Amino acid sequence: MTHADEAPRTPRRVRINRERLWATLMELKEIGAYDDAATGLRGVRRLALTDADAEARRRCVRWMTDAGLEVRVDRIGNVYATRPGRDRSLSCVLMGSHIDTVATGGAFDGTLGVLGGIEVMRTLNDARIETLRDIEVGFFTEEEGVRFGTDMLGSAVTAGRIPLDHAHKLTDSDGRTVADELVRIGFDGPAHERRPAPHAYLECHIEQGPILAEAGVDVGIVEGVQSISWQRLTLRGEAAHAGTTPIASRHDAGLVAASVVVELRRMCDSGDFGGLRATVGNFDLGAGQTNVIPHEAVITVDLRNPDDALMTAAEQHLAGHVDRLAATHGVEVAWERMAKTAVVPFDAGIQGVLAETAEALGLPYVRAMSGAGHDAQEIAAICPTAMVFVAGEHGGISHTPREYSNPHACGNGTDVLANAVLRLADQP
Amino acid sequence: MTHADEAPRTPRRVRINRERLWATLMELKEIGAYDDAATGLRGVRRLALTDADAEARRRCVRWMTDAGLEVRVDRIGNVYATRPGRDRSLSCVLMGSHIDTVATGGAFDGTLGVLGGIEVMRTLNDARIETLRDIEVGFFTEEEGVRFGTDMLGSAVTAGRIPLDHAHKLTDSDGRTVADELVRIGFDGPAHERRPAPHAYLECHIEQGPILAEAGVDVGIVEGVQSISWQRLTLRGEAAHAGTTPIASRHDAGLVAASVVVELRRMCDSGDFGGLRATVGNFDLGAGQTNVIPHEAVITVDLRNPDDALMTAAEQHLAGHVDRLAATHGVEVAWERMAKTAVVPFDAGIQGVLAETAEALGLPYVRAMSGAGHDAQEIAAICPTAMVFVAGEHGGISHTPREYSNPHACGNGTDVLANAVLRLADQP
Repeated sequence: MTHADEAPRTPRRVRINRERLWATLMELKEIGAYDDAATGLRGVRRLALTDADAEARRRCVRWMTDAGLEVRVDRIGNVYATRPGRDRSLSCVLMGSHIDTVATGGAFDGTLGVLGGIEVMRTLNDARIETLRDIEVGFFTEEEGVRFGTDMLGSAVTAGRIPLDHAHKLTDSDGRTVADELVRIGFDGPAHERRPAPHAYLECHIEQGPILAEAGVDVGIVEGVQSISWQRLTLRGEAAHAGTTPIASRHDAGLVAASVVVELRRMCDSGDFGGLRATVGNFDLGAGQTNVIPHEAVITVDLRNPDDALMTAAEQHLAGHVDRLAATHGVEVAWERMAKTAVVPFDAGIQGVLAETAEALGLPYVRAMSGAGHDAQEIAAICPTAMVFVAGEHGGISHTPREYSNPHACGNGTDVLANAVLRLADQP
Repeated sequence: MTHADEAPRTPRRVRINRERLWATLMELKEIGAYDDAATGLRGVRRLALTDADAEARRRCVRWMTDAGLEVRVDRIGNVYATRPGRDRSLSCVLMGSHIDTVATGGAFDGTLGVLGGIEVMRTLNDARIETLRDIEVGFFTEEEGVRFGTDMLGSAVTAGRIPLDHAHKLTDSDGRTVADELVRIGFDGPAHERRPAPHAYLECHIEQGPILAEAGVDVGIVEGVQSISWQRLTLRGEAAHAGTTPIASRHDAGLVAASVVVELRRMCDSGDFGGLRATVGNFDLGAGQTNVIPHEAVITVDLRNPDDALMTAAEQHLAGHVDRLAATHGVEVAWERMAKTAVVPFDAGIQGVLAETAEALGLPYVRAMSGAGHDAQEIAAICPTAMVFVAGEHGGISHTPREYSNPHACGNGTDVLANAVLRLADQP
């Protein structure tokens, strides 16, 4: 080990073992593997607190202990593994992400950040490097929110946004609670869920989008997480005969809903609302009939914006537009708020460390906002936080077995993680 | 009886018995009655060749024989009842419609024309009127097409458009054939389905639309049936994450489908395609997710046009527009033809008789194309044909227990039917 009493002036540099990282990723994806009919590929189905998740948790814990780390489990099932630093009174540098997947998941979403963090530990061991601060790697419970309906559950409990009791009582579609499932799989740990605040939190994660690939880089530095607005819009008109009802007499709920979809795209293209992204993923006319004017339409509106003020402006414009459409067509409007989160900006200092690290490694990078939610947006509430993105192939497609980041990109992203952690862990 | 050997120079005039007509309508609607949860009203569910239809058929046959008519049943279950004229070598004047209903039907759709025809016979009997030609009243099997999937089935077989064998083999959702159900309910008659061509065919039917009510008249003279085009449009794009996928990188099948809906309305409003009516009654994104860009959208497009050339122009414009949208958004297009019928113009001479009759009765009327299909459009292939429309309340809403035409309107329409039949039956 290096026995310097002070942090070195020129940061030490490490390179992770890419083959070992890749082998670990490939091993974990066999837990919960299934044959995906839609793609003809082998996917991963490892919903939180299922038997598959439990097996993957035990495998990760084994890898952690094999790396000489001290493992602890908290009361919401988050798992942390510590590599002690020289001064254990200092707050740690935390790496983390999640190992649960959606029902049609791939091998990289979440997993890369956890197994990459374990690989960082192994690399530091191999190089016999000692750090000033403790380094931890962890994984958070139910990031996807697919099983118990609330995403970023474990990290939100840790950050204090969701009370432990509330989280414990959440149920899956079969009525099983989080608390009971934690006990069942043996991950109802004793550690307090409101953990000591880290010195910094770093999360390496696949981008799940095309920006890095289009820029021709493997690595992104994440500036923050966009504001997210989910609303359900119900429009009620009047059913009538398609053949006999004059155009001017119609109260066509489907037409108004379609007009909203088209207006949302116009809003995105206009530039009036900054980097607005709008998606209508649900469009339901009920039991429609070819020759009946739809009396009810229900759509969901997913808005993303890297700017809170422009998000508010977009929501206000949309509401006014829908009101005008509804008045024109004689259709009733009901909005239901499903979710709303503000922009979470990541720490400029940590982003700077990531940028310096990438430059020192000779890795080109871009800066980008995250369009998806991540555990980092929760942990950002308790300590300086930033994320490293890794490029994906096929346009960065994710939540499908087609999700794929090549070994080179995964290695480069994890190298950035390792060396940034090393810098942060030596900060006094 | 009147014993003139020649048709009278001034047409004779009759008035039907409105109370009797109404009582008959109210009696028949009890057969197949059900409590409709959606409206809280009592509706009629009398699908073709069910036990309820059989009972309604027997009731009508009894009313026919009570009126002294000669009843016959043909091989597709159409029922005709004849009031003999002086010269039985001449072709008859036929009145008709249907007594089957949709699953959520009312008391007037079809039934008014059949029970109105029976009331005409009773009225002629009461007035001891003798006509030159035979007069017939009939009802056709499975006009709605709800049970066996083909509407206007009985009249289409009679007109020769659908072969008897094909019709007999059609099955309902339980696999029961038309032929077996005709035998089961005892309406597999011996008469040949390709009946002797009538001198004229008149059908009195509720409008099922708002035009008459908006014009403030009880009666309409139908100029023909609009062209109908049904197509299914499938758009295939690519699923992607709503948060991470830039607007310009999207292949949003739902957005293209919504743009088609909006363009169809613009086409109707433009006037470029005459009296075009367009309806999208189905809009299916499959198992949509709020935060996933829809990869597939399936919509149905129902077009109506009173002009065949403008219908063709509308279809061509739509196809070109969809191709341009698809190219812009990188989405694949597949069209499936569901149905297409040309405009069926009704006979100008018969329309003239109806107009003279309404004027002689002092009844204001409007002329209108039918937006819905009717048995008359099939029978028009074998003899001069026209229709009388009767105004409905609540915007002419139909195929729901809310369907309602008041006794006054029903009486006025049936008076036009009676006196027009009288004129036609005295034509040499």
